Amino acid sequence: MIIVLKPGAGQAEIDHILQRIAELGLKAHLSRGEQRTIIGVIGDESKLQSEPLQAIPGVEQVLPILKPFKLASRDLKREDTVVQVGRVRIGGGSLAMIAGPCAVESFEILDQIAVRVKAAGANILRGGAFKPRTSPYSFQGLGEQGLKILRDVGRKHDMPVVTEVMDPRQVELVDRYADMFQIGARNMQNFDLLKEVGQTRKPVLLKRGMSASVKDLLMSAEYILSEGNPWVVLCERGVRSFEESTRNMLDLSAVPNVKGQSHLPIIVDPSHATGRPDLIPAMARAAVAAGADGVHIEVHSCPEKALSDGPQALLPDQYAAVMRDLRRLAEVMGKSLA
Amino acid sequence: MIIVLKPGAGQAEIDHILQRIAELGLKAHLSRGEQRTIIGVIGDESKLQSEPLQAIPGVEQVLPILKPFKLASRDLKREDTVVQVGRVRIGGGSLAMIAGPCAVESFEILDQIAVRVKAAGANILRGGAFKPRTSPYSFQGLGEQGLKILRDVGRKHDMPVVTEVMDPRQVELVDRYADMFQIGARNMQNFDLLKEVGQTRKPVLLKRGMSASVKDLLMSAEYILSEGNPWVVLCERGVRSFEESTRNMLDLSAVPNVKGQSHLPIIVDPSHATGRPDLIPAMARAAVAAGADGVHIEVHSCPEKALSDGPQALLPDQYAAVMRDLRRLAEVMGKSLA
Amino acid sequence: MIIVLKPGAGQAEIDHILQRIAELGLKAHLSRGEQRTIIGVIGDESKLQSEPLQAIPGVEQVLPILKPFKLASRDLKREDTVVQVGRVRIGGGSLAMIAGPCAVESFEILDQIAVRVKAAGANILRGGAFKPRTSPYSFQGLGEQGLKILRDVGRKHDMPVVTEVMDPRQVELVDRYADMFQIGARNMQNFDLLKEVGQTRKPVLLKRGMSASVKDLLMSAEYILSEGNPWVVLCERGVRSFEESTRNMLDLSAVPNVKGQSHLPIIVDPSHATGRPDLIPAMARAAVAAGADGVHIEVHSCPEKALSDGPQALLPDQYAAVMRDLRRLAEVMGKSLA
Amino acid sequence: MIIVLKPGAGQAEIDHILQRIAELGLKAHLSRGEQRTIIGVIGDESKLQSEPLQAIPGVEQVLPILKPFKLASRDLKREDTVVQVGRVRIGGGSLAMIAGPCAVESFEILDQIAVRVKAAGANILRGGAFKPRTSPYSFQGLGEQGLKILRDVGRKHDMPVVTEVMDPRQVELVDRYADMFQIGARNMQNFDLLKEVGQTRKPVLLKRGMSASVKDLLMSAEYILSEGNPWVVLCERGVRSFEESTRNMLDLSAVPNVKGQSHLPIIVDPSHATGRPDLIPAMARAAVAAGADGVHIEVHSCPEKALSDGPQALLPDQYAAVMRDLRRLAEVMGKSLA
Repeated sequence: MIIVLKPGAGQAEIDHILQRIAELGLKAHLSRGEQRTIIGVIGDESKLQSEPLQAIPGVEQVLPILKPFKLASRDLKREDTVVQVGRVRIGGGSLAMIAGPCAVESFEILDQIAVRVKAAGANILRGGAFKPRTSPYSFQGLGEQGLKILRDVGRKHDMPVVTEVMDPRQVELVDRYADMFQIGARNMQNFDLLKEVGQTRKPVLLKRGMSASVKDLLMSAEYILSEGNPWVVLCERGVRSFEESTRNMLDLSAVPNVKGQSHLPIIVDPSHATGRPDLIPAMARAAVAAGADGVHIEVHSCPEKALSDGPQALLPDQYAAVMRDLRRLAEVMGKSLA
Repeated sequence: MIIVLKPGAGQAEIDHILQRIAELGLKAHLSRGEQRTIIGVIGDESKLQSEPLQAIPGVEQVLPILKPFKLASRDLKREDTVVQVGRVRIGGGSLAMIAGPCAVESFEILDQIAVRVKAAGANILRGGAFKPRTSPYSFQGLGEQGLKILRDVGRKHDMPVVTEVMDPRQVELVDRYADMFQIGARNMQNFDLLKEVGQTRKPVLLKRGMSASVKDLLMSAEYILSEGNPWVVLCERGVRSFEESTRNMLDLSAVPNVKGQSHLPIIVDPSHATGRPDLIPAMARAAVAAGADGVHIEVHSCPEKALSDGPQALLPDQYAAVMRDLRRLAEVMGKSLA
Repeated sequence: MIIVLKPGAGQAEIDHILQRIAELGLKAHLSRGEQRTIIGVIGDESKLQSEPLQAIPGVEQVLPILKPFKLASRDLKREDTVVQVGRVRIGGGSLAMIAGPCAVESFEILDQIAVRVKAAGANILRGGAFKPRTSPYSFQGLGEQGLKILRDVGRKHDMPVVTEVMDPRQVELVDRYADMFQIGARNMQNFDLLKEVGQTRKPVLLKRGMSASVKDLLMSAEYILSEGNPWVVLCERGVRSFEESTRNMLDLSAVPNVKGQSHLPIIVDPSHATGRPDLIPAMARAAVAAGADGVHIEVHSCPEKALSDGPQALLPDQYAAVMRDLRRLAEVMGKSLA
Repeated sequence: MIIVLKPGAGQAEIDHILQRIAELGLKAHLSRGEQRTIIGVIGDESKLQSEPLQAIPGVEQVLPILKPFKLASRDLKREDTVVQVGRVRIGGGSLAMIAGPCAVESFEILDQIAVRVKAAGANILRGGAFKPRTSPYSFQGLGEQGLKILRDVGRKHDMPVVTEVMDPRQVELVDRYADMFQIGARNMQNFDLLKEVGQTRKPVLLKRGMSASVKDLLMSAEYILSEGNPWVVLCERGVRSFEESTRNMLDLSAVPNVKGQSHLPIIVDPSHATGRPDLIPAMARAAVAAGADGVHIEVHSCPEKALSDGPQALLPDQYAAVMRDLRRLAEVMGKSLA
């Protein structure tokens, strides 16, 4: 931590700051420059991170040096974390290919979709039973009935299943049916929900919030990790921007950016990122080439009758075509697509 | 609803769309232009709003005409809604002046702050007992003990109190102590929480999400209203932007923008918007001049020892100076500051 | 300047950095912390600002301490700069009320508008002769003929005139007719144009770019000042954001933000910021309350026939109503509206 | 064009609008719905595009149907445009691999870099002679001397050269030395400059502005095309966002997005997009996988002594490693890397 003082900071103000640092059991290192006086703080910086030093009179800027997350950091753990979902491994060279409809609508429809995506190479089945919809008048999901259908179809096709959990009160219920929790973008900073899934030992797919920085995403992962659940998979799914022709802006640089700082796997969701089936294949390819540990794509057998997000779903044939490309790219990248 | 067809859309595709519209009990109105064929849909547009018409082959664009919210809309209710919090009225010419520390820390500190902000003209006391912190290692609030302190200090100074609720499971507890719920920016689209406070009849202060559009904000209000609770006060508190010198970017145009579309009151929080005490006074003045129904400001008697967000708090003296300006501006605006 | 080294930085890397600092005639101050080694650089920081120290192996972060602008800085000049345009003063308590149509269309139309805005209290007349239009097929302005009309109408009503200059080759021409240059948002970083107007001694209205930070805006002002022209007036006119219901997002916090860092006056343009006549009055009032040194509003006597930006223009009567409010707010703010 | 009327629009207002449409030689098609009356306009929509219909009383919304660009549109020209720069083809399956330092500094340094990037597979050499720097105190480029060095080094290594032009007055000079003009992000809407390069017949590399939408980018291309120069190559180089850990946010979806709407080639610049050498390789790979027609990377033999943008340059060895990956990905994509 470096504390930069204002040009006119006097000795009384400096002494006051030095005293605060000493009270916290840390050492200060004063350096008087021509234009500014600077105090370096030596010791465990984390003690200072919640201190409002910026509010002390005479302080111009407080510059933290260390990252605010620990358990998620590659400084703590050098090797890649591999998250196991059923028999599927995510990370460390193994790609998760998650596919399925936005919402679970019926056994028949989900079954139709599952058989097609599995044949194309998907290894995890997705489907929402609790849907976070912008409008209270939109379809909100089938609830527990949807969870049952998802589990049953998953078992039938021998695919582990992932589904969104939106409310801490649903965690126990969802835990009974799903192989992996999904925390949606709107809930990335729903800290009580993060703590609740952090207390299970089931893998969590944590989606980046619509205006979350990469650091914010890692801090939210830290919430889960700090409760004792180490099985977090991050997901880049686009952020809000001024560009009106796509639903969100896919920030693929988040993939190498996360991998440099953290040992956690990160996958990419081009469906929500673009909201446009014509752009999804190119962005899925780019994700694999950027080094992502998997791709999450919405697929529906009849998008125009889908109860949620139909316009952004791929048809099963389109998905199969994408998967043919991804297989070849995975090979170039030295990744296996189980 | 207007459906624009792709240049090459054939008769079979047009017939398919016309049939879908008829199935929904609506009338279609076909118009063949030189470059595009257009279908206008006549009838209750809301029946179409959740339909994925965009996914039908041959469709280029679907253009909704009506707003997706109803209960929040000024089309439904022309006159301003006035929300009563204790004896304080918000809206319809009465300004809410909400002040207090970010977090409740102790009875003594809160009491010290309350006496000062009340003397300066604040009419509602704020203080967090449950704190949504980016880091799991930061102070998370005093919980129920904080709620008790807040209620007791409020009673002592005859001020109604507002505090954040983050988890649907806390709603009942918070309801026992607070006069108004606050839904924070990170939870603006925590739909289960919105439904839960919607089932009470206590006023809700709903803060705009960090990347929520004005329409999204009104849709979240619609969730609360549609559960039967009409007492929603909106709050503009800045959105994420590329500007690094302020914590967020205060979008004051949201004030007249909301007022044109909705009957709900809207207040402004310049503390979270700017994160900088040097900018708060100017932005508080601008909020009142823009027509806001109140201003929400964080005040702490010793910002450098605050357990949360100290660097953005005003000192009680600074707050009193701001309030002197706001009083004069309120007069020009024809508003009363009870 | 503070240089933070990577965790594993060795002695050879440290020595290499120390040598680079010495070569530049500066002193280094080494501080070894528990987790990081830090080098403070003492001396004229500006020597280092263009050095790519970040590229040196072993360097994790380079943290500048000083602001990159000098002539625009309040550190250099404490008192507010007052810019004189004809007989109108901008800054130091005097408000510029700039009004007129987007584009000069004819003597008659401009004359009609000028008589109305002057009566309402405008003190500077605006009108574009060279128009930066997104489409090459839109009206591009009348060129020199437009400049003549603007000058003639200005003289007739005894109002100084401001008009946009887009191309360094036009500076001499525009200089002959206008009392103030306008540099539009799209040209805020057209550095050759900035240098060219910097070589005149005529006031420059410099609009903030659509995604320029406040620091970027001040750096562009620095370009003009460093060529010898001290008469720069800044203009906040909204930035790009995800909010689709307004043309841009007006960042009013830029007003106190600039005033804290710089001595230059800053005005606000709510017309381009919102693009919506229903929001302009509230944003004009907010601008004055925030401490702006003036307001720039587009006014047209027949917006539906305007050749450029008609939908965002106020009618003369609407402008007069806004000015009545601004007059009362200016009084509260202790500003004079000549 | 569809005109949606306000709920209370009366017959007089409707008649007024119908008359305006008739005056423009177009036909109107009235459709009265339950909640809104809508007017479809039949005929050449481009006649209406510059009309401020939105400003007519009674009009709620004006919805354009057609795209505002023509010459850049794939509707006009179905097959991909291939741009020839010297002997290098860009588009139609051929990849441009542009590399070189940010700025031309000396013959020796550029020569050193050119030999290395050519050996690695680069086919076009870049280097700036006129540099758009945020600060007036930063190195501004060598000017004509830089152009000469660039041409001479290009000839020596038989590589065509591209360099930025910032000022319409420089176009003739740069035309004498360069094989391709570059229009930088800051000048994407410098319309006089676009017109000037549009009057030459030399290829133009047009970089996307920092907050330009894909439509804005294509409109700027339209400026060049409409002056008669068909040889435009677009370049995605990242846009401004709230994410602070990268210089800009690379919007790779712009690649398939542009390709769906336009016949023009588009390349990607991961150097300016990320500003971080550790992220450039992954983003270069993702660009090729997304279908880009080339990659633009800054390379410097000694980044720590570079006079401009050193910290984002790759070393020649790093560039060679990237190129090995790109070659394999190009093969998967069916592209040739001459």
